[in-house]
Amino acid sequence: MAESQPRFLASDNTSGICPEAMETLLEANASDDLAYGNDRWTQLASDRFRELFETDCEVFFVFNGTAANSLALASMCQSYHSVICHQLAHIETDECGGPEFFSNGSKLLNVGGDNGRITPSGIATTVTRRGDIHYPRPKVVSLTQATEVGTLYSLDELRAIREVADRYELKIHMDGARFANACAALECSPAELSWRSGVDVLCFSGTKNGLAFGEAVIFFDRRMAEDFEYRCKQAGQLASKMRFISAPWLGLLDSGAWLDNARHANAMASRLAEGLKDVEGVELMFPVQANSLFLELPSRVQQTLRERGWTFYTFIGEGGVRFVCSWNTSPELIDALRDDIIAALASSGR
Amino acid sequence: MAESQPRFLASDNTSGICPEAMETLLEANASDDLAYGNDRWTQLASDRFRELFETDCEVFFVFNGTAANSLALASMCQSYHSVICHQLAHIETDECGGPEFFSNGSKLLNVGGDNGRITPSGIATTVTRRGDIHYPRPKVVSLTQATEVGTLYSLDELRAIREVADRYELKIHMDGARFANACAALECSPAELSWRSGVDVLCFSGTKNGLAFGEAVIFFDRRMAEDFEYRCKQAGQLASKMRFISAPWLGLLDSGAWLDNARHANAMASRLAEGLKDVEGVELMFPVQANSLFLELPSRVQQTLRERGWTFYTFIGEGGVRFVCSWNTSPELIDALRDDIIAALASSGR
Amino acid sequence: MAESQPRFLASDNTSGICPEAMETLLEANASDDLAYGNDRWTQLASDRFRELFETDCEVFFVFNGTAANSLALASMCQSYHSVICHQLAHIETDECGGPEFFSNGSKLLNVGGDNGRITPSGIATTVTRRGDIHYPRPKVVSLTQATEVGTLYSLDELRAIREVADRYELKIHMDGARFANACAALECSPAELSWRSGVDVLCFSGTKNGLAFGEAVIFFDRRMAEDFEYRCKQAGQLASKMRFISAPWLGLLDSGAWLDNARHANAMASRLAEGLKDVEGVELMFPVQANSLFLELPSRVQQTLRERGWTFYTFIGEGGVRFVCSWNTSPELIDALRDDIIAALASSGR
Amino acid sequence: MAESQPRFLASDNTSGICPEAMETLLEANASDDLAYGNDRWTQLASDRFRELFETDCEVFFVFNGTAANSLALASMCQSYHSVICHQLAHIETDECGGPEFFSNGSKLLNVGGDNGRITPSGIATTVTRRGDIHYPRPKVVSLTQATEVGTLYSLDELRAIREVADRYELKIHMDGARFANACAALECSPAELSWRSGVDVLCFSGTKNGLAFGEAVIFFDRRMAEDFEYRCKQAGQLASKMRFISAPWLGLLDSGAWLDNARHANAMASRLAEGLKDVEGVELMFPVQANSLFLELPSRVQQTLRERGWTFYTFIGEGGVRFVCSWNTSPELIDALRDDIIAALASSGR
Repeated sequence: MAESQPRFLASDNTSGICPEAMETLLEANASDDLAYGNDRWTQLASDRFRELFETDCEVFFVFNGTAANSLALASMCQSYHSVICHQLAHIETDECGGPEFFSNGSKLLNVGGDNGRITPSGIATTVTRRGDIHYPRPKVVSLTQATEVGTLYSLDELRAIREVADRYELKIHMDGARFANACAALECSPAELSWRSGVDVLCFSGTKNGLAFGEAVIFFDRRMAEDFEYRCKQAGQLASKMRFISAPWLGLLDSGAWLDNARHANAMASRLAEGLKDVEGVELMFPVQANSLFLELPSRVQQTLRERGWTFYTFIGEGGVRFVCSWNTSPELIDALRDDIIAALASSGR
Repeated sequence: MAESQPRFLASDNTSGICPEAMETLLEANASDDLAYGNDRWTQLASDRFRELFETDCEVFFVFNGTAANSLALASMCQSYHSVICHQLAHIETDECGGPEFFSNGSKLLNVGGDNGRITPSGIATTVTRRGDIHYPRPKVVSLTQATEVGTLYSLDELRAIREVADRYELKIHMDGARFANACAALECSPAELSWRSGVDVLCFSGTKNGLAFGEAVIFFDRRMAEDFEYRCKQAGQLASKMRFISAPWLGLLDSGAWLDNARHANAMASRLAEGLKDVEGVELMFPVQANSLFLELPSRVQQTLRERGWTFYTFIGEGGVRFVCSWNTSPELIDALRDDIIAALASSGR
Repeated sequence: MAESQPRFLASDNTSGICPEAMETLLEANASDDLAYGNDRWTQLASDRFRELFETDCEVFFVFNGTAANSLALASMCQSYHSVICHQLAHIETDECGGPEFFSNGSKLLNVGGDNGRITPSGIATTVTRRGDIHYPRPKVVSLTQATEVGTLYSLDELRAIREVADRYELKIHMDGARFANACAALECSPAELSWRSGVDVLCFSGTKNGLAFGEAVIFFDRRMAEDFEYRCKQAGQLASKMRFISAPWLGLLDSGAWLDNARHANAMASRLAEGLKDVEGVELMFPVQANSLFLELPSRVQQTLRERGWTFYTFIGEGGVRFVCSWNTSPELIDALRDDIIAALASSGR
Repeated sequence: MAESQPRFLASDNTSGICPEAMETLLEANASDDLAYGNDRWTQLASDRFRELFETDCEVFFVFNGTAANSLALASMCQSYHSVICHQLAHIETDECGGPEFFSNGSKLLNVGGDNGRITPSGIATTVTRRGDIHYPRPKVVSLTQATEVGTLYSLDELRAIREVADRYELKIHMDGARFANACAALECSPAELSWRSGVDVLCFSGTKNGLAFGEAVIFFDRRMAEDFEYRCKQAGQLASKMRFISAPWLGLLDSGAWLDNARHANAMASRLAEGLKDVEGVELMFPVQANSLFLELPSRVQQTLRERGWTFYTFIGEGGVRFVCSWNTSPELIDALRDDIIAALASSGR
């Protein structure tokens, strides 16, 4: 690989479709089937989710994460209600106002918290700060698991949040853009990490787990899912050829690739962290608990890395950079990045 | 094929991905690439559209037709404006309020018209009926080409509509769910059938033409496309792995399959019409000009056909049935349907 | 009065504030009071409504009818639901898409029906026509009492509509722009004409009854009113100096003017109908049951009347004209109009 | 006045209608007139605004401040755009998500700044922080004059903001809830303080200046006002009896009361500040530049004041209290408050 060619670690969405998902996609393409989710693949995949989560949950497939989170939140509150989330939450920082658009105006109330995690006391403070009708009434807590900065909520932390949510009659939404990575890292079952810890609605990302497109919105309380299929349809999120979302999901779930892919991605992030841990001048910004790694790097070093083809995001307002590993990130790529970082630091005079 | 197995003619969205699209999909999966449309496939496909339409148009890829039409319309008017469309238009009858949702309230003003086509006089009457602020001001005419009932607007009809649109300062949106079928049937170039006939924004469907997902929203006046990428993002229509929409589109366009698929589907609809033309008791509801065919059939006949595995939609309020042919509809399937219709009619005592 | 001066019969909103309402308005202005409805006037007026309706209803004051109806409907359904109403209903014809805007996209499903009234069978047909997710699910029936064409639903008709609404799990909204006129004409109590006949939410107009501004949105089932005050606030319908809406309402209710005003207006419409009943060439378009009267008049006659200062609306698509009487319409004005109509008809050669 | 009776200084919206406004209100009630702003009062008041602002501006009357600001902002950007405002701005803290609702999702980007004022550098930082489509693009700067904390932007500060706004192609909205107070305090003409300093759209409050209801939304660039009357209508902000908003405005403007009322209110706030300036333990939180005064007071002192009938708001998260003076605040009331504060402080042991 020539150095000018891109080497992708900017996000887990630069990877393609994993073999297990591709296999069922091709199989689903072998014959015609009914549209709008009335096909056999969608039925099978939904049942498979119910097995995985060990409960009779309701499952909906939508195209992407913006829609999954926004539609779920819109179904959990009205326009004059509000959603409590971390100030670094994706719904706040990277959805271009999607949640506000789908809900017709629900405000996101930002709270701080170390390592991208909100805390019970942060929630309580936010709920009790205002109680008048001039401010939108909080109805939902939105958690990201794994968080935007690659950290995790433990089961205990989730249960403590459920407790405060109960006290203030709040529902809990989980943005599971990297839910599989969280399951893998915490060695928890999907059930433990969702409804058994108090999550009401989970948006489980397939795109970041090895699909081309497609997130599953999972309601653990079926009453909350009433007419959600109409909501999806109206909002442009009902795929006519839905089997091309659900069949790949079935491939992921049946083969266990959903978990293997996540474990691999997590391992690659750990490998990078390990490889850099004794390097002088390299500081991790957050604990590496899932598949992302954040470093503060001098801008000259960032520049050198870009010249060598590495793609990565800078972390707004922090001067840091983010690397995200995926199901197809190779150890060789990780080691090459480590070497390039070390070399760039050395030549930058640190 | 056993008679109890489904035989799909309900819609062109029960077919899968055509070989030409699958080939580039697989190719796009061979290596990682940038997200959110910054990949090379999206660039190539967009350029290919500009060649096809012989103009420097702006192209956006979204997931499905609900979104394509709704976002395009929302960008062409404000919430207190209105859209003139045929009372049988898909945006009116089958989008569950999608256009109203995306636009935050724009009203669809329904007009009648033979064979699913609106006329210049229908438009003029609608625009001039009200001129006060208690009624939403018409800003857009939405045409479906081919129409919901499988008919076509001729170039002359389109130009006459453009003329009345100019008189009342209306923009023209074309729902091109079956635009390829229209090009094939009319033997017109895409340019002739769109901007050269006065269309401002075209929603060109890939899903019905052989893709898994993905419609192209094409703005012929680039100024009208300002910030449309933000609109797509906010509304959950920016695919992170966009190359899995754009690469299949490139496959369709480069190979000419977009037109071949459409020609084939049209031919199959004609074959069915031809096969039934001398059958007593069979009446076509509309001229068969593209890939759909509408028949009035006694309910006992409909019942028999369903029992033999045929899937089809009934046509609301008309007692009719709809058959739609696709890129992979075989002559054998068409002939089998013809035979089954004839047999069912005979045994129903007509 | 010189003939060139305007003589107002176009609508009951060209009249001003009636004396009883003005008296309490002035009284409320005599001293400062708390804002946002925490004043004593708002409390008193709300209690007075509960007495009038003989039930523990929830009452909210908003600025105008567009908002009252739109907010009420938005609280009764979600954006992917729909509202069944008469094709002549004000919410359909004269709110510039207000209901769709406030609800973020709920579609109004129009039904016909003689004399501006929808029927149980019209409702049933509309609900059962579609049952798929591609069409917004009906959730609400909206009735206008008195109707847009000055007719009335009898108690029996209302109960029959409640029955069909129960069958299909629909809620009933009543647009009471002229609810007082209906109570007066039918000699029914407000309770009989609303919740006892199955109405869930009533928008009771004060503006047309003698106020400057202000409608009461009345929920007979308090659970349906949950957080409605937040909805009003967010939507710009929470008056800071709310006492200037509620105090005039109290004046209307306490004095009985709400009913006297309505009776007077109805009587004036009857007087006009009576005065024209034997006039050749004059045809009532609808029975005169409340305070409006619709006539078909030749355009030359209409022109003559306008030149003599009469203000009135033409009735869209019917070639008719509408006269509406108000709390301050005088018998002399009515008689002068009758004379002018007769004279204009005579000189127009009929 | 017994001590248990309320003494109103919580807001300038607890006062009633000033005599000059009442006079024209009564006059407008003397005869019928056309609805929806076609009356002569609305025409006169609009012209009077154009004189006052010395330019051919476009004027619209709406019911309240939530609506005025939200509709103005919605007209200045699309749902995927954003509005830069101070973190203490009313649109952010006290409109229950109104701006997001009316705009269908535009995000408010909060910036800090001393004394409730945003700065050119704060704007520049916010605009340049993000330039990608995952974040709503800034289009508008919203300023509050006088600010929420009773301070003022000088003409120089406004011009500096205009400069940075020009650099980034931003429009400027001014929330003029207390615009009259700003004109009075700065001894500037309305023109100087608005369009001559770069303001594009001004929401000029009548409610806080002595009306019952009614704000004027003033567009200095008429092209930006295109179809704004439709927007108002759809959003429930077109008063049918509009003369009861516009006539009182005419009274305010013609008599000069708009300015006298503001001067008086400002003087009363100054009087209170002056009366407390040498009192030990009393600290002003912000300079007193208009008609509001913010103090930090121990909670025991606050409690004592409430027991003596004083109404005031606490200032979120700051432990402070707010007093706002109005057109009818008397010197005696101010002096009584001063005395009560001093007495309460003394008895609380400070």
